[in-house]
Amino acid sequence: MPETMRAIIKPRPGSGLEMTTVPIPKIGPRDVLVKVRATSICGTDVHIYKWDAWAASRIKPPLIIGHEFCGDVVEVGSAVRSIRVGDFVSADSHRYDGTCPVCRKGQPHICANLEIFGVDTDGCFAEYVALPESSAWVNDPGLDPAIASIQDPCGNAVYAVLVEPVAGQSVAIWGDGPTGLFAVGVARAAGASLVAHIGKYPQRLAIGKAMGADLSIDISQPGVDVVRTLLQATQGVGVDVVVEMTGNPRAVTEAFAAVRKGGRFSAFGIPSQPITVDLNNQVIFKGVTIYGINGRQLWQSWYQMAGLFRSGALNVLPVITHQIKLDEFQRGFDLMTAPDRVAAKIVMYP
Amino acid sequence: MPETMRAIIKPRPGSGLEMTTVPIPKIGPRDVLVKVRATSICGTDVHIYKWDAWAASRIKPPLIIGHEFCGDVVEVGSAVRSIRVGDFVSADSHRYDGTCPVCRKGQPHICANLEIFGVDTDGCFAEYVALPESSAWVNDPGLDPAIASIQDPCGNAVYAVLVEPVAGQSVAIWGDGPTGLFAVGVARAAGASLVAHIGKYPQRLAIGKAMGADLSIDISQPGVDVVRTLLQATQGVGVDVVVEMTGNPRAVTEAFAAVRKGGRFSAFGIPSQPITVDLNNQVIFKGVTIYGINGRQLWQSWYQMAGLFRSGALNVLPVITHQIKLDEFQRGFDLMTAPDRVAAKIVMYP
Amino acid sequence: MPETMRAIIKPRPGSGLEMTTVPIPKIGPRDVLVKVRATSICGTDVHIYKWDAWAASRIKPPLIIGHEFCGDVVEVGSAVRSIRVGDFVSADSHRYDGTCPVCRKGQPHICANLEIFGVDTDGCFAEYVALPESSAWVNDPGLDPAIASIQDPCGNAVYAVLVEPVAGQSVAIWGDGPTGLFAVGVARAAGASLVAHIGKYPQRLAIGKAMGADLSIDISQPGVDVVRTLLQATQGVGVDVVVEMTGNPRAVTEAFAAVRKGGRFSAFGIPSQPITVDLNNQVIFKGVTIYGINGRQLWQSWYQMAGLFRSGALNVLPVITHQIKLDEFQRGFDLMTAPDRVAAKIVMYP
Amino acid sequence: MPETMRAIIKPRPGSGLEMTTVPIPKIGPRDVLVKVRATSICGTDVHIYKWDAWAASRIKPPLIIGHEFCGDVVEVGSAVRSIRVGDFVSADSHRYDGTCPVCRKGQPHICANLEIFGVDTDGCFAEYVALPESSAWVNDPGLDPAIASIQDPCGNAVYAVLVEPVAGQSVAIWGDGPTGLFAVGVARAAGASLVAHIGKYPQRLAIGKAMGADLSIDISQPGVDVVRTLLQATQGVGVDVVVEMTGNPRAVTEAFAAVRKGGRFSAFGIPSQPITVDLNNQVIFKGVTIYGINGRQLWQSWYQMAGLFRSGALNVLPVITHQIKLDEFQRGFDLMTAPDRVAAKIVMYP
Repeated sequence: MPETMRAIIKPRPGSGLEMTTVPIPKIGPRDVLVKVRATSICGTDVHIYKWDAWAASRIKPPLIIGHEFCGDVVEVGSAVRSIRVGDFVSADSHRYDGTCPVCRKGQPHICANLEIFGVDTDGCFAEYVALPESSAWVNDPGLDPAIASIQDPCGNAVYAVLVEPVAGQSVAIWGDGPTGLFAVGVARAAGASLVAHIGKYPQRLAIGKAMGADLSIDISQPGVDVVRTLLQATQGVGVDVVVEMTGNPRAVTEAFAAVRKGGRFSAFGIPSQPITVDLNNQVIFKGVTIYGINGRQLWQSWYQMAGLFRSGALNVLPVITHQIKLDEFQRGFDLMTAPDRVAAKIVMYP
Repeated sequence: MPETMRAIIKPRPGSGLEMTTVPIPKIGPRDVLVKVRATSICGTDVHIYKWDAWAASRIKPPLIIGHEFCGDVVEVGSAVRSIRVGDFVSADSHRYDGTCPVCRKGQPHICANLEIFGVDTDGCFAEYVALPESSAWVNDPGLDPAIASIQDPCGNAVYAVLVEPVAGQSVAIWGDGPTGLFAVGVARAAGASLVAHIGKYPQRLAIGKAMGADLSIDISQPGVDVVRTLLQATQGVGVDVVVEMTGNPRAVTEAFAAVRKGGRFSAFGIPSQPITVDLNNQVIFKGVTIYGINGRQLWQSWYQMAGLFRSGALNVLPVITHQIKLDEFQRGFDLMTAPDRVAAKIVMYP
Repeated sequence: MPETMRAIIKPRPGSGLEMTTVPIPKIGPRDVLVKVRATSICGTDVHIYKWDAWAASRIKPPLIIGHEFCGDVVEVGSAVRSIRVGDFVSADSHRYDGTCPVCRKGQPHICANLEIFGVDTDGCFAEYVALPESSAWVNDPGLDPAIASIQDPCGNAVYAVLVEPVAGQSVAIWGDGPTGLFAVGVARAAGASLVAHIGKYPQRLAIGKAMGADLSIDISQPGVDVVRTLLQATQGVGVDVVVEMTGNPRAVTEAFAAVRKGGRFSAFGIPSQPITVDLNNQVIFKGVTIYGINGRQLWQSWYQMAGLFRSGALNVLPVITHQIKLDEFQRGFDLMTAPDRVAAKIVMYP
Repeated sequence: MPETMRAIIKPRPGSGLEMTTVPIPKIGPRDVLVKVRATSICGTDVHIYKWDAWAASRIKPPLIIGHEFCGDVVEVGSAVRSIRVGDFVSADSHRYDGTCPVCRKGQPHICANLEIFGVDTDGCFAEYVALPESSAWVNDPGLDPAIASIQDPCGNAVYAVLVEPVAGQSVAIWGDGPTGLFAVGVARAAGASLVAHIGKYPQRLAIGKAMGADLSIDISQPGVDVVRTLLQATQGVGVDVVVEMTGNPRAVTEAFAAVRKGGRFSAFGIPSQPITVDLNNQVIFKGVTIYGINGRQLWQSWYQMAGLFRSGALNVLPVITHQIKLDEFQRGFDLMTAPDRVAAKIVMYP
């Protein structure tokens, strides 16, 4: 066992990241040490890379960043009972305290004292990572490491789509980022009657098709009327389930207009500012239920996701557009920030 | 059996109502004829009385108005099976078709082809009224006719408050109109840990107290901070359940600010125009669920309401501020439109 | 338009059926007249054919039997609004009154006064059939008539499997009759992680495979241990969802033993007599929820089913083993009563 | 701070208990030390006292027994964040691991590796008790210590009654032990339309009346027909919610017969052996849902319970028939084992 490892850190306030050598972390009695097999880049990592206002206010350098990964357990603390050396694990990046009123009312995913791994503590863009047992998830041994790495964001899609059942329901998903693309696959795998996908990058909409979209609506095309298209596709009734994953005011408005009377709205995309909603006509008279979706519903989402992988009905590989070495991280971030949006999900191997 | 009856009609476009003599309605094979014992004035009746823009666009005079009532069945059609002559009945004013996709997905209360009794068809401000069996509800024989008359709006409060259970939950209700006052009583009767009531008329807040409010917040007082008061009353956690029954933008904003992480928002009050919502901080990050509440959940709400009456825990008499003769209807409408809001619910006896 | 039609009737008490010529039914103002395209044989029809104790106590000959079908609307009553001449329709065979307490509490599928079409009233083994609008369902125009005909029993499978969501859950289904086979397909289409199918006829288990079973357990084989097999397939945890569709005491016991702590039990198969349940260890300590499933949840199940057909994920054709002419009904009943169980679902064309 | 304390122990296999002096427990970094204010006797303690077959197989003497209590925190471990010295606390006796599949599917109350405080580890019949922070519950400071002590079993009643809402529903509860009596109070406080209570000891039924039962049925009286009485009380429809808390086969049979079509059955009482259920007529045809109820739903039940206490609608003092000194524990156990059932809940003060 070596004593040091390579890791990608935010060394100091300001843009950019550096690869450096740091000590392999020590673990406590309730922790496990994991040798990373694969790790992937999240939009959050890009915020930290760019050092935007959110990052400047939240991140305390130096910090190893990254929170999506999988790897093999190489050491377990003395009090650990559910994990063994050799287990193939991933982690949920959201750490809840289990004692606040929100946790104890059964909603630990929105814990009042939530900490995020790779944001508030050292993360996983490294050769090794230390985890509390309570954050670790044991994968099926045969799961593709690329897939095992991207489960944290895929779990968001699982929660957003499956907060109520979609089997036999029409579903429309706004957003062609990775979570929107995962959501298309989840809706398809869970038996949606219709999966409509609304986006603005043709190559992303093509991935949505590969994930199972029946109907792709490219808002970058002139004259596109999203609401009319969705109403036509649902015999004028409106869509049973709308999943908004952009935070864009136009998309929010379209989603409210397209949802049927008595339908469901999953609000996941983060608007940059308060937004105008026609509460009267689009929520109250229509009897719509709106779910604010934040992260994953922790392990319930992970169990559903693992089950969908096992079913064979959910294949997320089309969303993973690039697989590179961890040493090439700079190229990864260049791809993530390129205006052409060719890269969706990038997996890096240490 | 007489052949004519007194009835209050909107005789022609324009403000005001008239009492006149009309034929007693004939019933079809699936209808029942009811001799009205008590009838009550709704805000909708006031809109029709005043002949505002909504009324002008919807109402086709001449029309007998009124939709809240109770009475005794004096005749039943040949195909009627669940109602007998002598039954003491009320009616749900919302008539659904039972065949549209919304009805058949289990949500007839927001039927795509909803018709409203006393708005789209002749109503109950009269000595007799004809009803389809499918609209009729058989009351407990001993129910006070004043209470039996106001069940349609009370059912709205039942739905808005009980769309999810409130036993042991903190509840805050914005609105001191009749439905808000009923909602206070429903929350109290169903075991809420705290019932906070927010209003602006002292005499209405006093009725709220009589209905069981633990905490009354009078926003007409200078320096009142509704959100801070609610946070203090919930140890800083926020309120489990907020029920917004005003449609006022300030109230909507307060309700979103006061609801706890993971809490529930019942949206019932109708804003006069689209409204700004901080979807990001108040819905998504907080993991809030919002229910658009329109009318009652039909008979499920009626069964819950009848059960709450039977339990003895819900007494709505404090909301019924005036009981007058039907002949005095003009006085009733004068009271309903007086700026002092002394009248909450007015029951009229033919 | 002819005045008479061929129909299969139970002419008098006793076994057997006869084809005869009868008048085409007249319709009332709320009814539709349908020219039958396809009709299929249910186990209930076999009970009536054989004239067993249940049939003798319930059926009042002469009666046109049959309740599963599809066809084209050729006439609509004056009060019908949701159906037009030319619509391609099927029907739910369960007729509810809409006014009993059970209906009005939102559970019309178990109406206190339920009547069954083809059992309590003339049915659809005929060239024409009259239906109340409230029983009719408009199919997608392109739906295969063989599939459109078998929706009544397929809807039972939809309800039994989807009473709670199964996406990403392990599901085990006991029963290789048509409803069990449909259930396999529904679980598969709705994203189950594992679909285990337990039966005793190899040809039926083969159909289950075609419907998407991952794991087939043939209890006719010596030494088969259903519970151990299911525990192994779920890493010792037990099955999330068990669906019991035989009513056999052995199957009920196995299902209770195989369901995981906190899992769900759908009880659909009708035991011939009261049954012994280890309420202590298999229900209470395990925290299991049991749903009694009777029929379909009416139109909610039909909407889910239509959506699953549209999704392309549910193809029920493998269950339809025979397609014959209505004139060959005797051969159909011979097949249905043959001990070899070669026939699963038989569709007949007038 | 003293170094030793008085405690009631099971010193060795066999019947009886002894008071002795033992060291005050040491706490770890995630634990709290509590000075006990009040502690109460559970039926489980009586099993251990008597040393029946269950106790002999489970308990490893020497052991301090007892698991219901309240007290003041006098020391907190270094990693404890949600509890402070001086807090007035109780504990849930069920310790879950948080990592097994059952916990992670959101059902920690039936954790696959559940340990019980006072059964598997030293308990609270003592002057001091050590607790993991994860087991501790902070009470309202003004809560009566006698009430604070009995929350563990009262939480069982909360879960059994409120697993689905009861506001406006008719509820029948079988069982006049403490949990049955608590259940009567919970149903009453949560707005049940009717609370029927079935028992066999007149003094217990009298406590049930004090807790809010509308209808008491004493099965020790000759000629009592429980089912007929309940059907009469519900206009022949049957009871919406039945809560079975005896495990007695007669009671289980009555509860199934009395529940309405589409109603709910909470199974809490532990039958001593497998039991015969008419799955056909009483579950499937009636469309009944059965919940196996084991313990409390942890903190969700505690929050509901605390809220019901705060509402003022739930007062459990009538169930606490005796308040004695801890030194008098022998008298307490004599009362608990007396055939007259005069004692319901006994609170002991150190």
